[in-house]
Amino acid sequence: MSSPQRPPLAHVFKGTFVHSSASAPLEILHGHLLGVDDNGTIVFVEQTDQLEQLAKTWGFKTSDIRQLSKHEFLMPGLVDTHIHAPQYSFTGTRVDLPLLQWLTAYTFPTEAKYQDSGFAEEVYTRVVRRTLKNGTTTACYFATIHTDSALLLAEIIDKFGQRGFVGKVCMDVNDSVPQYRETTADSVQETERFVRELLEKKYPRVQPIVTPRFGPSCSEDLLNALGDLALTHDLHVQSHISETEEEIKVVENMFPAYQNYTELYDKNKLLNSKTVMAHGCHLSEEELKLFSLRGAAISHCPNSNFSMRSGVLNVQKVLKHNVKLGLGTDVAGGYSASMLDAIRKTMVASNSLQINKVNETGLTIEEAFRLATLGGSQALGLDNVIGNFEVGKEFDALLINTKASDSPFDLFSADEFEFFQASNDYDLGQQILLSEFVFSHFLKDTLQKFLYLGDDRNISEVYVAGKQVVPFSSSV
Amino acid sequence: MSSPQRPPLAHVFKGTFVHSSASAPLEILHGHLLGVDDNGTIVFVEQTDQLEQLAKTWGFKTSDIRQLSKHEFLMPGLVDTHIHAPQYSFTGTRVDLPLLQWLTAYTFPTEAKYQDSGFAEEVYTRVVRRTLKNGTTTACYFATIHTDSALLLAEIIDKFGQRGFVGKVCMDVNDSVPQYRETTADSVQETERFVRELLEKKYPRVQPIVTPRFGPSCSEDLLNALGDLALTHDLHVQSHISETEEEIKVVENMFPAYQNYTELYDKNKLLNSKTVMAHGCHLSEEELKLFSLRGAAISHCPNSNFSMRSGVLNVQKVLKHNVKLGLGTDVAGGYSASMLDAIRKTMVASNSLQINKVNETGLTIEEAFRLATLGGSQALGLDNVIGNFEVGKEFDALLINTKASDSPFDLFSADEFEFFQASNDYDLGQQILLSEFVFSHFLKDTLQKFLYLGDDRNISEVYVAGKQVVPFSSSV
Ligand SMILES: [Zn+2]
Ligand SMILES: [Zn+2]
Repeated sequence: MSSPQRPPLAHVFKGTFVHSSASAPLEILHGHLLGVDDNGTIVFVEQTDQLEQLAKTWGFKTSDIRQLSKHEFLMPGLVDTHIHAPQYSFTGTRVDLPLLQWLTAYTFPTEAKYQDSGFAEEVYTRVVRRTLKNGTTTACYFATIHTDSALLLAEIIDKFGQRGFVGKVCMDVNDSVPQYRETTADSVQETERFVRELLEKKYPRVQPIVTPRFGPSCSEDLLNALGDLALTHDLHVQSHISETEEEIKVVENMFPAYQNYTELYDKNKLLNSKTVMAHGCHLSEEELKLFSLRGAAISHCPNSNFSMRSGVLNVQKVLKHNVKLGLGTDVAGGYSASMLDAIRKTMVASNSLQINKVNETGLTIEEAFRLATLGGSQALGLDNVIGNFEVGKEFDALLINTKASDSPFDLFSADEFEFFQASNDYDLGQQILLSEFVFSHFLKDTLQKFLYLGDDRNISEVYVAGKQVVPFSSSV
Repeated sequence: MSSPQRPPLAHVFKGTFVHSSASAPLEILHGHLLGVDDNGTIVFVEQTDQLEQLAKTWGFKTSDIRQLSKHEFLMPGLVDTHIHAPQYSFTGTRVDLPLLQWLTAYTFPTEAKYQDSGFAEEVYTRVVRRTLKNGTTTACYFATIHTDSALLLAEIIDKFGQRGFVGKVCMDVNDSVPQYRETTADSVQETERFVRELLEKKYPRVQPIVTPRFGPSCSEDLLNALGDLALTHDLHVQSHISETEEEIKVVENMFPAYQNYTELYDKNKLLNSKTVMAHGCHLSEEELKLFSLRGAAISHCPNSNFSMRSGVLNVQKVLKHNVKLGLGTDVAGGYSASMLDAIRKTMVASNSLQINKVNETGLTIEEAFRLATLGGSQALGLDNVIGNFEVGKEFDALLINTKASDSPFDLFSADEFEFFQASNDYDLGQQILLSEFVFSHFLKDTLQKFLYLGDDRNISEVYVAGKQVVPFSSSV
């Protein structure tokens, strides 16, 4: 691929693309061409009748086009807005205690082990590989309090080509497992070192994020210092909020001067448009309004909320308050590292609110798909970079093969067959219109099958910023 | 394998076996030997120190023993107590309407197509293969109203070696899709023909089951005639009950002479110890008592209940009433044909009741495992034949490989490493005891990872009555 004026394109795909926009949870583009330049940026998304013009403008040949089969489509990469990399070592086990006991019995003792960089390297490599394989192109990670192993996590993310945020966890309060905490001064200084050293690496798509663990683990001094640090360096912020009722009571007792949990973060300069807070199951209307006012986001982690019996977030209420919302796996409070599971559990959470007559209607599977892609990009402040297939955004994408070998779901010939039968009753013009309609309908069904029943076997290729990162290259 | 007195054994396995009993939801037997005779019956389950005696008694050699690796274990086959084979064609789609509209818009028009045996053969073959591959050794199927395609389903189940019940669906009331119903007389006569012809086939492990669809689809005459038929031929019975509140109202209006939905079935001789009723989300205490008195069982289908927003069954309440309970996928109201999904959704349902403070405690994952195996066998009246690894039962089993190639979850060397470290501080006797303890602990974690995160890739072999049915032989 070459042209006199421009560097050659990295990819030209022809086929079906599904993604979301602000106005439509699901947009299906078939018979489209999508071009990605050498920087990984999407440079065109056009109907195939524009081929000749596009080829001329961008200097590619028909033989350069990657033609997708009729059982393949491209969708935006999945965005995991909340995941604890160190907890991946016990994911799928130990979800039998409520949050505060769970932290003491399992999580703090496990996280304490990440002082050992050998242990950290094994687990961090596995969690990055596992999430990428499951289509997570962007992840917002908690590491542990250990600066060096948090830097190692960033290095591994960069090496495998995932996009991500990494937070060195800050906690200067921990009465239950006192060996797993820092002094206030150490926590702040180590965060400064973490941010500085990470930025010095100049990884193109891995950024530091300021990470106070949550209210009960932090002194007011620590929160305040971290708020200053985030403001000074214009950094992203992540933490937890209002996950369980017990936690809220602890916060009330620890910080009686604050009206509520949200104000604790807000007054310490930790709640702004670069903030993502996990859970928020029990936030009041007043707190949601403050989230909206500040432009702060919520990471909805339904698997974790069910598994740890924390509560059920009313996503529709959050969205009505114009609060940005993405989905998170919250490994290992959530037992699955796959964002497909987060989509499914989002449906269960929404449906359970309908069953309990809290809401009259529920989210559609297409809306959950949007939350896992575009919603996640908004929650992490990356919606000008990723989230859908708009020209100018970077190409983070999954190639879905609905007829992959050993696919976990079946497609039936009858589904397609019916369309042709239907078409026979109409003239040619009508048939074309009808076949568009029928194809959309078929693809909507197929996408649903993938979202409800698919897994990594259907995710045949993963791209981050135009670079194919799955299947893994032999060099990583 | 040979001995003078007995026919040779079909299998001798050595390794780890996990199963449930009435007293323990999870029993882990390691270092055990399990023998299966030529009829598929388990003839011994003993510790390995009994090897010499067993080899002598049963006439096998050490080289006949199948030694499992340390990443493998055997567990009982999964029992799906409620699945609609014809609906498999649209599973994973169309769960966007409540039950009664869903039946009219999607289900009845689809089921009507099973008059065509070509269509039936494709879908029925796929659903039997898919469920077997996912470890369902026994399934209790609804077919459609069409006798011949229901017989075809039975033939396919037998051919693939699954154990199952098949019901020709009976419905003489259907105002919304009137082309999909029978006359009362036809429904009864065709059920008689179905039962007769199926029994004449003499399939060893496929039985007919009398299947009135549910209250709203049946006249009192039909229910009564089917009750007589079931009693006369001593047949199993399946139907639906109290899935949604709307359905209950319809039943109240249709059958004002009956106190409640349960009485409708009971007075028509359809509620006894050979009955399994799907859902029961909204059964009253009084109705649960009648279930208990009659020995009738409930099939809990949590995926379906969430997906269709029908309600949440309180499993713990049902069990406290001494009502038999198994799990079901309820394809396609439930979108997944895998019983592993049913186990996971059972946990979500139980956890959601704890979140809503309906129950103070929830089911454990081990209890959900028991419901999917032993519980299912009880619900279908097969607990003297299958459900766990008791001597005298038939060997329905899954060989689980937790390190299968492309396994969907990771195991960590650190987990095992810790055990050895721990052991070093103790003398040899203590080390053996400790390593038993540690191994149990490790295996419990590994089993949890499989139950929460595993899939068909970890199910490397499936046995029904001693016969290996997965991987599929080339003859089917
Ligand atoms: Zn978290
Ligand atoms: Zn059903």
